Amino acid sequence: MTIFEKIIAREIPAAIVYEDDSTIAFRDIDPQAPVHIVIASKTPVPTLNDLDDSDAGLTEKMIAAARQIAISENIDASGYRIVFNCNKDGGQSVWHIHCHLLGGRPMKWPPG
Amino acid sequence: MTIFEKIIAREIPAAIVYEDDSTIAFRDIDPQAPVHIVIASKTPVPTLNDLDDSDAGLTEKMIAAARQIAISENIDASGYRIVFNCNKDGGQSVWHIHCHLLGGRPMKWPPG
Repeated sequence: MTIFEKIIAREIPAAIVYEDDSTIAFRDIDPQAPVHIVIASKTPVPTLNDLDDSDAGLTEKMIAAARQIAISENIDASGYRIVFNCNKDGGQSVWHIHCHLLGGRPMKWPPG
Repeated sequence: MTIFEKIIAREIPAAIVYEDDSTIAFRDIDPQAPVHIVIASKTPVPTLNDLDDSDAGLTEKMIAAARQIAISENIDASGYRIVFNCNKDGGQSVWHIHCHLLGGRPMKWPPG
């Protein structure tokens, strides 16, 4: 069981900012920007490579959640970055698909 | 008309690596990693904030295209990062929704 499954099950605490049937979102414990929120799937798919037809719509729902949170965090107009990491070179560290929403400062280029 | 619309219309050249009914993908002209590909919507929505119900499924198709290209570029196992930039703080520079697929090297943290 990954740390994200434990957050979903409320077995460990997290600063949850959004939840729906498909996703849960909480503040990153090591924030890299004034707003840095992790949006995780509730379905424990390990990586983007492992998505299949049974997961149809899931990445769209994750992005929709990120867009909604950008509004509630008041960074929709100023701007934000959404990042998905897959496997080692992508920088993935929890094997449960999620994306990062970052904003509240100008994000630089390259993106890591 | 943005540069991406001109690429879609074949009015300016681009190194196109993938195309389907909803998306077109081409190599970034200023690559930030050994593999750096832009996946653009064929529908000219300016930003993520502007998506509405008529665009349902579009971000999912963009990510599905990125995942498919990761396989064809042979970076699916080593890993990759998918990045969406929205508005100025996100680093958006073309007002036509797209995402970046980067891989072929370890991506760093923070993501910009």
